[in-house]
Amino acid sequence: MKVSELCQVAGVPLPSVKYYLREGLLPAGERTAANQADYGPAHVERLRLIRALIEIGGLSIATARRVIEAIDTPDLPLSYVFGVAQYAISDASVFAEVADDSPGLARVDALLAERGWAVTPDNPGRHGAARVLDALAGLDRSNVVDQLEHYADAAERIAQADLAAVGAAGDLPAMAETVVVGTVLGDTLLASLRRLAQEHVSYQVYPVRSPE
Amino acid sequence: MKVSELCQVAGVPLPSVKYYLREGLLPAGERTAANQADYGPAHVERLRLIRALIEIGGLSIATARRVIEAIDTPDLPLSYVFGVAQYAISDASVFAEVADDSPGLARVDALLAERGWAVTPDNPGRHGAARVLDALAGLDRSNVVDQLEHYADAAERIAQADLAAVGAAGDLPAMAETVVVGTVLGDTLLASLRRLAQEHVSYQVYPVRSPE
Repeated sequence: MKVSELCQVAGVPLPSVKYYLREGLLPAGERTAANQADYGPAHVERLRLIRALIEIGGLSIATARRVIEAIDTPDLPLSYVFGVAQYAISDASVFAEVADDSPGLARVDALLAERGWAVTPDNPGRHGAARVLDALAGLDRSNVVDQLEHYADAAERIAQADLAAVGAAGDLPAMAETVVVGTVLGDTLLASLRRLAQEHVSYQVYPVRSPE
Repeated sequence: MKVSELCQVAGVPLPSVKYYLREGLLPAGERTAANQADYGPAHVERLRLIRALIEIGGLSIATARRVIEAIDTPDLPLSYVFGVAQYAISDASVFAEVADDSPGLARVDALLAERGWAVTPDNPGRHGAARVLDALAGLDRSNVVDQLEHYADAAERIAQADLAAVGAAGDLPAMAETVVVGTVLGDTLLASLRRLAQEHVSYQVYPVRSPE
């Protein structure tokens, strides 16, 4: 199909398509004339992936390129693809390294040891969780910290579902794409479901919609 | 204490403290002289809350002011405070309303009906989840959508822990602060724990760190 048709099928405006081509996120079509190229279904799929990563996942162009490269590299270990996807959605300062003597970091490491979770020390979640725990301690919100075990239980179930989705993907490229898409879009899906569940549970616990 | 001491105790630089005072996030101290005011422990607490909302929760000044107003308003129903906190961390375009005929929205509404979750139609999570499901359908990632029930189970556990923390807060102002802090910082905490659990589970499922 021509580039105009590609835009229509994928629902992406022409200037954006040209931009993704220029930035190397979308591979070039097959040249059919001096000024014309031919695009196929793989280009439609790739365009949808780019839009999902950027518009829903909030990734920058540079970060989207990095995770797409990871998808495209054949035989990359899945744990590496997970790492790339995790870093891609964790470049906010909140996941930056905390000080070695952070009490929150000690609490996170104790949690990891209790649960037998084997993770690399530079997993961005280790520092993000430590930062939140330190902030909660500063705010005297131990009632939130007391729920840490329950949050960790829920996180483990989520990760099991994440890996089940990866296992059901079929071939290796589809598994790699599932890792990226599931990790990036999954954060938004889970934050959304949490908002819905919060409203439901809050009506159950406080039926008159007020604690009084 | 003087404003210089307040800065030191709370670990916040003076220009930021002056900015928060000017923007009405931090209440003024008690005036003791023409050019001097006295600050107490409540100011320290408030400063820590402001920093946590802005630096970890990523809220704008305007949004932080809105959620702090909700905390300060006496006898506000908790469901209302939840709503304010949810909107505060959901002002990204990803939570904007999707089209009425979105297939993802129909899927979300079916999920709500199956689980008996009573939520208002404008809960931002309803539209955020619908948007992600539509994107996953466009990417042919039904393997991720197939895990929706498991993600919803996890979200319900998280919400129960959220409400348990609120119930344990003590008085009503502390409950309102827990709603805000738990909702805003909780997203970061859960995203962090998910990254840790993903790495752990992925080693379990793919012990050689490669699916081959």
